[in-house]
Amino acid sequence: MDENIVPDVVISRLPWYLQTLKQIADEGMQTVSSSLLAEKLGSTATQIRRDLSNFGGFGKQGRGYTIDNLIEELENILNMDRIWPMIIVGAGDLGRALARYQGFQNQGLKVAMLFDNAPDVVGTLVGKLRVKHVDSMREEVKSNRIKIAIITVPANSAQEIADLLVEAGIQAILNYAPVTLVVQSSVRVQHIDPTLHLQRMLYYLDEY
Amino acid sequence: MDENIVPDVVISRLPWYLQTLKQIADEGMQTVSSSLLAEKLGSTATQIRRDLSNFGGFGKQGRGYTIDNLIEELENILNMDRIWPMIIVGAGDLGRALARYQGFQNQGLKVAMLFDNAPDVVGTLVGKLRVKHVDSMREEVKSNRIKIAIITVPANSAQEIADLLVEAGIQAILNYAPVTLVVQSSVRVQHIDPTLHLQRMLYYLDEY
Repeated sequence: MDENIVPDVVISRLPWYLQTLKQIADEGMQTVSSSLLAEKLGSTATQIRRDLSNFGGFGKQGRGYTIDNLIEELENILNMDRIWPMIIVGAGDLGRALARYQGFQNQGLKVAMLFDNAPDVVGTLVGKLRVKHVDSMREEVKSNRIKIAIITVPANSAQEIADLLVEAGIQAILNYAPVTLVVQSSVRVQHIDPTLHLQRMLYYLDEY
Repeated sequence: MDENIVPDVVISRLPWYLQTLKQIADEGMQTVSSSLLAEKLGSTATQIRRDLSNFGGFGKQGRGYTIDNLIEELENILNMDRIWPMIIVGAGDLGRALARYQGFQNQGLKVAMLFDNAPDVVGTLVGKLRVKHVDSMREEVKSNRIKIAIITVPANSAQEIADLLVEAGIQAILNYAPVTLVVQSSVRVQHIDPTLHLQRMLYYLDEY
């Protein structure tokens, strides 16, 4: 698979398609048309067909998509045919909530380790994980060949943590710190910041 | 300001510009060029100038932007000249973490109420907020004219909660439930789902 062929924006929509297909499958359906899928997604049939055509299409003209088949294909494209271990750095409220989060199950993702540097936090149990000290993080990432990290540390230490993680071999970072991380272009970063998401909507609100 | 004039994608970038400008201001700078701002953002000077030109520009040719001035203008555009009360629906791990989150301070946002329906959760204190029962939610939203809700309930009840909220007058929803919400077009929804964000990056990871 050559990542230069398919635009990032198409790849970014695939997990969303996959999630919705799984919901439709749970409702007991076996096939779905691109127009029904579009309706569920708030997207258009044309866009869905165009996106999927990057990978060969999958649909039969006039018959829609076989849901199980499309789910399997999307999971293969997204490298979800295995379970990727992840680390969480920062065992505060959010880090602990993510460590206990049930939503990663059956999604190709698993929280393998949780790190912090606070003496009263290191060594405590969060769900089934014992919080490790960040001093051991580099070695753990390297020896376990972990590729994915979730950063939930404060803004002023996030860049330092990111640099250390990338040096240790991390290739994908989900950043919850309210700061834009600067990393080499081979490393993927996704930024989740509730403040930014909320402010994007303020513009559209009616005045009091 | 006519919301039809400025593309959504431009509006969506403004909070990110604002966040970065505040970081630069904290570092003691008073003016910034579009190229330095672009470097901090991992964006391009052309895009930043084009985005800001939707609102009149703000920069002086060859002198860059006066940071404090640009921050104030962006805050006005984004309706951040007041504090918007928000409710959180769902007082689980994530809902409680968000209720205690310090990052909304000075951002035009404030968690005003927290709702749940579990008998052992309703009435408990989370930070300074006492968890209210969802049965009172509609009335609280209406009488306090609350426009913004954060949904952290399980996937299977998220749509029902969204319908109730919209009916009560909510205009903006930050949805943490792993499901695509269907709402009328006048209501804004932003979706935060760590699974989707992580899966967007799996495609690019090197194999073991």
